Amino acid sequence: MQKRNAFYAQSGGVTAVINATACAVIQTARKHKDRIGKVYAGRNGIIGALTEDLIDTSRESSAAIAALMHTQLASIDKNRAQYERLLEVFRAHDIGYFFYNGGNDSADTCLKVSQISARLGYPIVAVHVPKTVDNDLPVTDCCPGFASVAKYVAVSMREAAFDVASMAKTSTRIFVLEVMGRNAGWITAAVGLAEDETTPIPLVLLFPEIVFDEARFLALVDAKVKKYGYCCIGVSEGLKNADGALMAEAGSKDAFGHAQLGGVGPMIATLTKDRLGHKYHWAVADYLQRAARHLASKTDVEHAYAVGKAAVELALAGNNAVMPAIIRTSDKPYRWKIGVAPLDKIANVEKMLPRNYITADGFGITAKARAYLAPLIRGEDFPPFKDGMPQYVRLKNAAVPRKLASDFKI
Amino acid sequence: MQKRNAFYAQSGGVTAVINATACAVIQTARKHKDRIGKVYAGRNGIIGALTEDLIDTSRESSAAIAALMHTQLASIDKNRAQYERLLEVFRAHDIGYFFYNGGNDSADTCLKVSQISARLGYPIVAVHVPKTVDNDLPVTDCCPGFASVAKYVAVSMREAAFDVASMAKTSTRIFVLEVMGRNAGWITAAVGLAEDETTPIPLVLLFPEIVFDEARFLALVDAKVKKYGYCCIGVSEGLKNADGALMAEAGSKDAFGHAQLGGVGPMIATLTKDRLGHKYHWAVADYLQRAARHLASKTDVEHAYAVGKAAVELALAGNNAVMPAIIRTSDKPYRWKIGVAPLDKIANVEKMLPRNYITADGFGITAKARAYLAPLIRGEDFPPFKDGMPQYVRLKNAAVPRKLASDFKI
Repeated sequence: MQKRNAFYAQSGGVTAVINATACAVIQTARKHKDRIGKVYAGRNGIIGALTEDLIDTSRESSAAIAALMHTQLASIDKNRAQYERLLEVFRAHDIGYFFYNGGNDSADTCLKVSQISARLGYPIVAVHVPKTVDNDLPVTDCCPGFASVAKYVAVSMREAAFDVASMAKTSTRIFVLEVMGRNAGWITAAVGLAEDETTPIPLVLLFPEIVFDEARFLALVDAKVKKYGYCCIGVSEGLKNADGALMAEAGSKDAFGHAQLGGVGPMIATLTKDRLGHKYHWAVADYLQRAARHLASKTDVEHAYAVGKAAVELALAGNNAVMPAIIRTSDKPYRWKIGVAPLDKIANVEKMLPRNYITADGFGITAKARAYLAPLIRGEDFPPFKDGMPQYVRLKNAAVPRKLASDFKI
Repeated sequence: MQKRNAFYAQSGGVTAVINATACAVIQTARKHKDRIGKVYAGRNGIIGALTEDLIDTSRESSAAIAALMHTQLASIDKNRAQYERLLEVFRAHDIGYFFYNGGNDSADTCLKVSQISARLGYPIVAVHVPKTVDNDLPVTDCCPGFASVAKYVAVSMREAAFDVASMAKTSTRIFVLEVMGRNAGWITAAVGLAEDETTPIPLVLLFPEIVFDEARFLALVDAKVKKYGYCCIGVSEGLKNADGALMAEAGSKDAFGHAQLGGVGPMIATLTKDRLGHKYHWAVADYLQRAARHLASKTDVEHAYAVGKAAVELALAGNNAVMPAIIRTSDKPYRWKIGVAPLDKIANVEKMLPRNYITADGFGITAKARAYLAPLIRGEDFPPFKDGMPQYVRLKNAAVPRKLASDFKI
């Protein structure tokens, strides 16, 4: 069988475990040197392919590749690939395998590369490798990257709740944590793991799937403060009002008539202050939550590695336009395996939090959600620390000499 | 020598390691049962003493007290103690030792308790135990609680910088992290540890000690983005304008004419967008930074325990109105010991970041600052995890029966 090179790119934002997938792709490819020559990566993701700015991962040591397991890094997307150019570059560098690591958009790109390359007579084996903290890809039980964010927001809310509880009598009574997740409430649901039977916390969650109902929200917060002395609120950046508009983008004035500079977190905090009179604090963890490799879920790291390894093996076994998916076979004990999903079932489909994961009142998570989320955050995988700081690898990123005469404007 | 009870209270906000101090106070007192009877704590800190709502720590198991080592919790202050009432409660419960764990304000309270109790003929041995994430107490080389925040903000900025760097070519170019510290720039300086020779990061720091100069700030950010493709900014919540006003509180309009909802972090981010046109993200970690026991500095935990132990030993050795201080004897290798500071040298004095810890341009930290900060964040002391979540102890908080007839309004 013909030996060809592979191209690996990451799409969109960072996750804490994305480079466990990169590590798996490269290590697995190196085990099949009879079939896969070099693994190239694109500088700045797929843009590096368009501009023929390729990185030769074969110049990296085994130790450096292994160190990717505990390094978070990513690249770019959202720039509609110019497929013909991509294929021109692939052809010039004898690239026959395309591994694209991302979410919904990149699954679509990956599918199109497969289809167009076949039409143009230069068939590329295109395999999508799942990764998105939003956890909104269909078919797969979860998306690598999500579980570590879930762990981060659950731990952070638990820690902050201890802080607030200790001072609620005379100081802060409301704490608001704004979390990511776009239109899907998976990360918001994970905030619910902050509390359990042994660590009760008065918690109110605002999901993007549930239209914001100001009166009911305020009544619930008021009741919690009266009963427990304080209240912690987890709010999704994707929270929407009754018109379907994002609360955080409701013009220069927010939904409550305040002019807006911050996000929905400070907006919700201000609302509780204005209406209920309590002192508040709010946090917006933003990139901190998705880049927090220091608190990665071990389960997540294992998933991220497994999908990278499976992607290469699927490609070698003749699969095209597919994505390795994580298939859960049991909650207790948690068991999972790798399955295969055709890309036309993945591309551009968003998987929302099911309604039965949200309590009837719309402000909490159900036992079903807990059963889903609990195994995902299990296990720690601390990176190596030196002088108190985590050591994340920086690769050499050795450039591959160009072969094409033409430049390409992005 | 007469055996008397002790009262221990925590003042102000949480730190990641505050209960290592509580653990030390209780464990050390238990070793001296001939001299110290029970250690009482106040429900909600010193307020619990005023309202005679005391907690009997002798009802907690040794295991529970030991588990405080990895639990963050705190109590209250800022409510001017009603000293006579305090002494009335102390007398009713045969409390002869007062250990007050806090920052500047509580050092002052502690000093007054010592002075007034002597005047009223019921002398209390009052020892202040240092604790403040702001790190602004004089005499002591550092304040327990600070080093863990320092580690958290340095790690968080390093992780976020990897995120931004990977996407800067086509997406976010500016990342702003707002940090705590009030008027002192110690935490802001610690953000500077995110980068070092092996991990260069284009970083701009905005200290509360340096008046914000918009034009010079924008020019520097612009230069960094042009050279490195992105720029990370650490900004103190206490950043001030030329009038000495807090940027974050400059009325409902911020200093740039935007109406303000968020803090200074989003304000700075918006400014760079308006003037330089770059896409930005911002994070405000708020309580997450000071409650992050999961990422505590081991050095900090050791300091926190040492000052608690020393406080009890100082009291037993006849010292009054003092504070155990951390005295650094060497940077390399890092060595420290416990010294004693009289409270009148501590109360209400704020120690700012020295000017020679800040680079000449006002936007970075010097080698001197690094030499100071580096040893403090060293070492990890991860809490025990169960099912993916850190396990923080909740004590029984057994109430002590009241002895006084009168109530007391706070």
